[in-house]
Amino acid sequence: MKARMAIEAGIERFLNENIEARVLDVANYIVSGGKRFRGALALLVSDLLNGNRELAISSAIAIELVHASSLAIDDIIDLDYCRRGGPSAWVAHGVSKTVLVSNLLIPHAQMLVEPLGELAVHEVIDSWLRITKGEILDVFEENAPYEDVVVLKTSSLFQLALALGCLSANRPELIPVLKEYGRILGMAYQVADDIVDFHNIEKKGWREALSLKKFVKWLGLSNADGEEKATVLRVGKDRLKGLVELATDVALAIEAKELGSYLAVLPYFMVSRMLEEGGLDLGF
Amino acid sequence: MKARMAIEAGIERFLNENIEARVLDVANYIVSGGKRFRGALALLVSDLLNGNRELAISSAIAIELVHASSLAIDDIIDLDYCRRGGPSAWVAHGVSKTVLVSNLLIPHAQMLVEPLGELAVHEVIDSWLRITKGEILDVFEENAPYEDVVVLKTSSLFQLALALGCLSANRPELIPVLKEYGRILGMAYQVADDIVDFHNIEKKGWREALSLKKFVKWLGLSNADGEEKATVLRVGKDRLKGLVELATDVALAIEAKELGSYLAVLPYFMVSRMLEEGGLDLGF
Repeated sequence: MKARMAIEAGIERFLNENIEARVLDVANYIVSGGKRFRGALALLVSDLLNGNRELAISSAIAIELVHASSLAIDDIIDLDYCRRGGPSAWVAHGVSKTVLVSNLLIPHAQMLVEPLGELAVHEVIDSWLRITKGEILDVFEENAPYEDVVVLKTSSLFQLALALGCLSANRPELIPVLKEYGRILGMAYQVADDIVDFHNIEKKGWREALSLKKFVKWLGLSNADGEEKATVLRVGKDRLKGLVELATDVALAIEAKELGSYLAVLPYFMVSRMLEEGGLDLGF
Repeated sequence: MKARMAIEAGIERFLNENIEARVLDVANYIVSGGKRFRGALALLVSDLLNGNRELAISSAIAIELVHASSLAIDDIIDLDYCRRGGPSAWVAHGVSKTVLVSNLLIPHAQMLVEPLGELAVHEVIDSWLRITKGEILDVFEENAPYEDVVVLKTSSLFQLALALGCLSANRPELIPVLKEYGRILGMAYQVADDIVDFHNIEKKGWREALSLKKFVKWLGLSNADGEEKATVLRVGKDRLKGLVELATDVALAIEAKELGSYLAVLPYFMVSRMLEEGGLDLGF
């Protein structure tokens, strides 16, 4: 079965079996609709290391539950009304139910990886802590460095996916190098996402425009507001190119060669596809 | 050092060392002011089993972080404006910060008990899951059985305290009997609390009065609204007496005799003190 379908089926089964009927609609609403890219990454790592498929699927479900919960909470904090083309969970189901269901999903995600051992549980706990730290930094610190926020909010889940993939294959020794790779992969993901958002800035609300200012500042373009759009896109793509190359270098140093070769090309395909879907060429 | 002072000092040190400056005031606000009864229970169990004091203090801090977070979240869900004589955390610091800081404190609590082993981490995860299930049942199920809600919302933390006390002393084999004891102790605590609240019902808001209706119904008094106050108090105390006796019976069956003897008298002292502070006699 293809990774994404296997994860979807796993999530659906897990929610039906573990979430009480009275909030199952809210749980489904929060968790539905993602690309499952992070979950698929865990599955991929495990498969390339000849890992245990069942443990990898549990890992993927756990990662997607944490990811979905973090988005639902972020939308409350950021007062975002829309998510994936529809109303945010808190708009559709209220703040109370959204918070409570997130407080159900997180411990479920933690328990899901218990069969992988205590290090896996620690990684899930730590990712939730780091994501929360990132959101606090993002929201309550006006001059928070862009990179610090991205590493906490975005890279954490990529790192979790890579770590759980290793643990599904009982290869904990690969975790440090994969975490370094995940840090850069998460950065590349966020930069590509921000480039696309900046390209479509006319369609964005003022909140998003505001958060993109931090991105433009990080690019080293001093006059964030007055910069030409073409300049921002050009410098952004340059920066993205550097991150893709860096991730590739780290990947090629991974001792598991088959995995390393795959991870070496993944960042390029990921960001070129993101830009393409956003109506842009990568240009490198 | 006395248990409560040791726990207070431990909490203060932990927050100062682990919570970022920008939300430390919110964390302190959420965590401050409790009686630390649950934390002290963990310490007591550990001491009576000659456990490791440092592990027991970590356990106590973890329990109090979970307890405080659950109250802060409950206040949001229940729209309670007051807590411990002042404004609730969400009133004082806003919903966003309260939710985010709770999302910091819970993973910190989980990590705090990692030195006690994976079973301890599991217990902390499970307690958060059960407390959340209890709140969902309480808020979103009009006919939720009183006892089910109390066991999930109140007993869970007593059970956690007892379990972590055992694990601080490396006596996991005592957990099952102590969980049964904790289930009853939590019930006794909540019934005593509701008796006192009912005694002072004229000073309570309509929300609390509403929640006490479930308690009165549980006492088997069919006409919850029209019942004489004296009847409710009399039947409530009868029920409380039964719970205290039951807890004592379970305690006396605990194989660790010194611990069992102490736990056998604890429920009586706990509820008689609670009623006394509420202006009532226990009457048995």
